[in-house]
Amino acid sequence: ICRTYLSPEHQACNTLVGEWMTEAGLTVRTDAAGSLIGHRPGATPDAPILLIGSHLDSIPDAGAYDGILGVLLGIEVCAALSTSALPFAIDVIGFGEEEGVRFGTTLMTSCATAGTFNPEWLQLQDDAGVSVAQALSAFGLNAERIGEASYQGRTLVGYLEAHIEQGPVLEALDLPLAVVTSIAGARRLAFEITGMAAHAGTMPMDLRRDALAGAAQIVSDIENTARAEQVLATVGTLEVRPGGVNVVPGSVRFTLDIRAGADDRRDRALATIERAASACCESRGLTLTISQLHEAPAAPCDAALQAAVAAGIEATGQTPHYMESGAGHDAMALATLCPVGMLFLRSPGGISHHPDEAVIADDVARAFTALTATVRHLANARDTGEHRGR
Amino acid sequence: ICRTYLSPEHQACNTLVGEWMTEAGLTVRTDAAGSLIGHRPGATPDAPILLIGSHLDSIPDAGAYDGILGVLLGIEVCAALSTSALPFAIDVIGFGEEEGVRFGTTLMTSCATAGTFNPEWLQLQDDAGVSVAQALSAFGLNAERIGEASYQGRTLVGYLEAHIEQGPVLEALDLPLAVVTSIAGARRLAFEITGMAAHAGTMPMDLRRDALAGAAQIVSDIENTARAEQVLATVGTLEVRPGGVNVVPGSVRFTLDIRAGADDRRDRALATIERAASACCESRGLTLTISQLHEAPAAPCDAALQAAVAAGIEATGQTPHYMESGAGHDAMALATLCPVGMLFLRSPGGISHHPDEAVIADDVARAFTALTATVRHLANARDTGEHRGR
Repeated sequence: ICRTYLSPEHQACNTLVGEWMTEAGLTVRTDAAGSLIGHRPGATPDAPILLIGSHLDSIPDAGAYDGILGVLLGIEVCAALSTSALPFAIDVIGFGEEEGVRFGTTLMTSCATAGTFNPEWLQLQDDAGVSVAQALSAFGLNAERIGEASYQGRTLVGYLEAHIEQGPVLEALDLPLAVVTSIAGARRLAFEITGMAAHAGTMPMDLRRDALAGAAQIVSDIENTARAEQVLATVGTLEVRPGGVNVVPGSVRFTLDIRAGADDRRDRALATIERAASACCESRGLTLTISQLHEAPAAPCDAALQAAVAAGIEATGQTPHYMESGAGHDAMALATLCPVGMLFLRSPGGISHHPDEAVIADDVARAFTALTATVRHLANARDTGEHRGR
Repeated sequence: ICRTYLSPEHQACNTLVGEWMTEAGLTVRTDAAGSLIGHRPGATPDAPILLIGSHLDSIPDAGAYDGILGVLLGIEVCAALSTSALPFAIDVIGFGEEEGVRFGTTLMTSCATAGTFNPEWLQLQDDAGVSVAQALSAFGLNAERIGEASYQGRTLVGYLEAHIEQGPVLEALDLPLAVVTSIAGARRLAFEITGMAAHAGTMPMDLRRDALAGAAQIVSDIENTARAEQVLATVGTLEVRPGGVNVVPGSVRFTLDIRAGADDRRDRALATIERAASACCESRGLTLTISQLHEAPAAPCDAALQAAVAAGIEATGQTPHYMESGAGHDAMALATLCPVGMLFLRSPGGISHHPDEAVIADDVARAFTALTATVRHLANARDTGEHRGR
């Protein structure tokens, strides 16, 4: 499976999913950014809108469920609701671009929906030199009209997204579903440590300025701090120079990816890590440079939508489990537009971004039940005045 | 400077150094492996032989003193002794191959002298596809006669080598010279650690099998063990796979170079390291494979030759300092043939294998005085029956 943004596979997917939307009684359109939208009217023409969605694009050699499952669940929920008049309209959205595979930037279409599409992105090129603007044109769209995809100014109940967990937590807990409390914001940093390369045979241990020995101490400290401070911290790359079997390393460069559901928790842990790394390098005669490569804020899920998702899960007979999402989702982009809520489904083996990605059929049935109940809960709350969207 | 084995630069160097040997009253010849030998007769035709030498070859972009300084000191000692009749002959040897640059194997010519030249080495090729046998032929030598370079069966007093330290120890101690107690034997090992690659955002810290986190702990433990056990241990290369900023490392490969002046001390430290690495990996759910890449035994310096070198240093007014050599030297190869002794000269800045390699002129003068006194000490000891070479 490989469905990248604005590709022929994306076109074919929109066509097929659009047919399923039509069968579910939805009115189908493609927005200015290529996202597929199925509309279910509310009880009145001026009713607010509940957005339900996820993404239809995939990484290369992908699994079958990442993203698209959430779109199909939204369609099925609408089909199940077909005879009920609700106090809000529903737009089921199949976003065209979440993974960032083709043009290197993630969440482009959900940003278009949120009204935060950066016009500079239109000039980004894929490996063949095709720009986003050119690809939109080839898809039958007009780059100049991309602003029309925005829902800014419209009255929204919120955004709901069902997604596979992509990790091993629910499987380890033997639970099918979870309420997402927040989508972690990641910061990525590069650590450069410089010491002095030396001969492994002639430089005594106590006179060394070994960049890798310092880096090893910092990597261990990062792991300990992450555990103590309840964040995810990963050193995923590390390079040693000059890199000879009999040469004391003169410099090391490594990256840190640090994430938490709350930015202050993440940043506090990072400050602890940076302090310890500085002290380590100072005591070893090493110089340390830390530069930030990337920063995204955490997107907390709305309390009322969390309660609605929890009510939905309770409707399946499961006690709700609450967890943060460490991976990014379209809901991160939507969080600047309206309240967001997310439902996680267990990932067997924790496997994702791989052809072996799987779901348990009964979990999908439960997710359908839960998401339907979530929407009914929101409708009831709105009818009884307990909940108002911003 | 670049003088590799059997190159035109090697030929030119042998010619020039040979002229200096002749000026010092030595009889010059080139042995079957290309080493240059200047002979000074002893008091009687059947007198044993004292070997004094080092190597004339260099790495590419070398400093001016590594190896060749020891050969020139041997020549100058002979010049200074010219009127004395000694109870042994002296052969000053300028070895042709110590660094292993051209054919990838070190100590080839000193092994020829020691009678341990491996005939398979004749087929080793340089980057241009020229074999050792072909290069010997181009140098005017005959590969079939390489065994004639061996001193096996001859009566030898021992082998003396003066060499720059190539490290920072003597400079840190503010001392010009040192007696070498042993030439460290190195073992080189590859550590392969396998865990499980995972998404940096979805894999909780306590469910990770992070190969780099395990490797970092082992690298720190290696450093601590080396300090506690008085060995040199260096992790000079480390590679992380798959190596993505947002991917928990699935596997790590690193190398360990471990050296000590005594093999049992080195091997005890390595056993401690291996035990701790196994325990670390077991507790983290990682698999560990350790494979040996290289092993060379330590070459202890002869006690009587150490005493003679110490007496030589005392003759300069310095209290002798004793230290191990962590780097390899021709004396390692000669140690299988006869007793060996080494004199170290201070290396300013600890710099070697670099154009900035330096010596202090006064240190060289002291080394000349010390080496001359060492030879006189050996002559006196032999005259008074205190020392017999094997």
